[in-house]
Amino acid sequence: MKAASVEADPQDGGLFESLPVRKVLVVGAGLIGSSIGLALREVEIDIALDDRAVGRLALAVELGAGRPVVPGETFDVAIAAVPPAVVASELKRIQKLNLARTYTDVASVKAEPQAEAEAIGVDMTSYVGGHPVAGRERSGPAAAHGDLFVGRPWVVTPTSASSRVAIDDVRALIAACGAIAVEMDADAHDAALAVVSHLPHVVASLLAAQLVGADDATVALGGTGLHDTTRVASGDAELWSQILASNASHLAAALSRFAADASRTVEELERIAGGELPAIAALTETLSAGVAGRARMPLKRGVPATGFATVPVVVRDAPGELAALLRALADAKINVEDVRVEHEPGRPVGVVELDVRDEAVPALVACVREAGWQLYT
Amino acid sequence: MKAASVEADPQDGGLFESLPVRKVLVVGAGLIGSSIGLALREVEIDIALDDRAVGRLALAVELGAGRPVVPGETFDVAIAAVPPAVVASELKRIQKLNLARTYTDVASVKAEPQAEAEAIGVDMTSYVGGHPVAGRERSGPAAAHGDLFVGRPWVVTPTSASSRVAIDDVRALIAACGAIAVEMDADAHDAALAVVSHLPHVVASLLAAQLVGADDATVALGGTGLHDTTRVASGDAELWSQILASNASHLAAALSRFAADASRTVEELERIAGGELPAIAALTETLSAGVAGRARMPLKRGVPATGFATVPVVVRDAPGELAALLRALADAKINVEDVRVEHEPGRPVGVVELDVRDEAVPALVACVREAGWQLYT
Repeated sequence: MKAASVEADPQDGGLFESLPVRKVLVVGAGLIGSSIGLALREVEIDIALDDRAVGRLALAVELGAGRPVVPGETFDVAIAAVPPAVVASELKRIQKLNLARTYTDVASVKAEPQAEAEAIGVDMTSYVGGHPVAGRERSGPAAAHGDLFVGRPWVVTPTSASSRVAIDDVRALIAACGAIAVEMDADAHDAALAVVSHLPHVVASLLAAQLVGADDATVALGGTGLHDTTRVASGDAELWSQILASNASHLAAALSRFAADASRTVEELERIAGGELPAIAALTETLSAGVAGRARMPLKRGVPATGFATVPVVVRDAPGELAALLRALADAKINVEDVRVEHEPGRPVGVVELDVRDEAVPALVACVREAGWQLYT
Repeated sequence: MKAASVEADPQDGGLFESLPVRKVLVVGAGLIGSSIGLALREVEIDIALDDRAVGRLALAVELGAGRPVVPGETFDVAIAAVPPAVVASELKRIQKLNLARTYTDVASVKAEPQAEAEAIGVDMTSYVGGHPVAGRERSGPAAAHGDLFVGRPWVVTPTSASSRVAIDDVRALIAACGAIAVEMDADAHDAALAVVSHLPHVVASLLAAQLVGADDATVALGGTGLHDTTRVASGDAELWSQILASNASHLAAALSRFAADASRTVEELERIAGGELPAIAALTETLSAGVAGRARMPLKRGVPATGFATVPVVVRDAPGELAALLRALADAKINVEDVRVEHEPGRPVGVVELDVRDEAVPALVACVREAGWQLYT
């Protein structure tokens, strides 16, 4: 059996040595809990699962996410993979059983559960909060995947009370899952998530909601831009309102700043509509800020958008055309990082956007032309 | 040489017969003008091009979008494919030359150019406004495509002054381009575009702009949702501020409604943050409205989102994997309507989402499994 551990810090002068993580308990066999089980199985860590929902536990075990826990056994790390609202009470319960050296959780909000844990007397020395920033629109063990965390950030939120052993145990667990540990203050984490995840969701929902009262003729004029901008608004309303509510304070602040910017833009537009044409410069500045903000976003694999190029290719809308194109590129050993099919409603000819590393562009263009496809130039 | 015409209306009792459209003048060899030229060439209509920018005209002619206009010749239809701000003056200029039976334009806003045309004495009998609702992020004749309009809506905005001949000529032109004519009042058109195109753009920009002041750690936590929601914000700020400014009044109204909804949601979130938990129900309602609005959106090909299913398949991130999958589907005669690669930053295994018609799902699933791929269930 292998063990996950972090390198001993050379600055410790050998006084501290991290302990191996060989046995892990996951309480809660949902999407995240089961995915952790599947990921740790890959590195041969012994995973025990527990869940009050017997059917869910049985399914997770059957899918290979772990074995059922045996009463009385102990673990290196115990993970409370339960909803934010019950993290504190679950930590309290399992700490009482004294079944692990280190305790962590995976909730997507951190400040509230942490404060609650302190309030109800959870031992804060052996507990370090965590949030794997990965997920899917679906939930439950059937949606679990062992590679869900690979290359993704996994935020760790130690407090001044956290022991060095606990922090290192959680970091070892994260490394074993293939994720990248990012240390943050719980409150900073919640503020960041409000901006990059919760705000886009609520904005997409508010935008899509504008179509509810629109007439059919209006809706029929919508294209790709509307489609992409509102995509996440299709998510489960009940589930997402729980998520947003659990970060209500930070999200309110982020949405309030956004709404103020929107109101300022309304004023700019009203001035333009009133014939005050210099106001166009202010509008251009607003849009330029959007261009600048987007340029900061990570592309696939966590790398920034530089170093990659998008090459658009025309592909007939017939079975096999896209496959033939990608086959030709594969034969030429060109690795396509991402593929998007422009799905303009009603267009029989598709434009496929291929993202490749900058250095692969000449080979890609040559390959596409040689095979008789057309660049959408 | 073929001719485009619309069917004579049987209710006319033979009194009216539409005239054939055989010769068309396009003034302005940009993206839309050149694409019209390429589209009409396919149905063997004689296309003459004119443009004050000699280089642009030469490029459009070289790309096959038409031949240079010969001074003194006349046309069935003349199209002012020029920016909204100069549509009226251009119509006035070409009407003075008396070179066509019918005049139209392709500007993406309709009310202002129409009012201006009336004000400067453009003959409104022979003029009918138009807007092909198709486009690309790029511009100029080099970006032109003959299939740009196929299956897309092309709004026609006749007034009470428009002659039957002019309306039928423009409809014949639209049919020849493969587009679908949609008759609307100019003002209704502008209001609709504000909601489905201009509002999503400005909202995406305002959202992306929130990242400008964010720290690197925050930006690094962004995923697919943030990516899609802000995609259109990468568009050229200068060009888009002109577009938005030309529809400032309707956009101000749409953005104002949106901003009011956002402010109301801020209040809901503040109530939740203050411990008023029943406010979560209001938030759920807000998100549900988004789900409902999005369900109204057309999918590819103008059909609503029903009748289609999305099947997620796991594909290793290696050259040839996606191609092999699509090849297998093509061999099985399964037509994939759309392909999306989930580009979660940092994930080495890609999940490919395949959109197919509902009835094709069983065959697709069988094919995928048979070939040894895994459904991302």
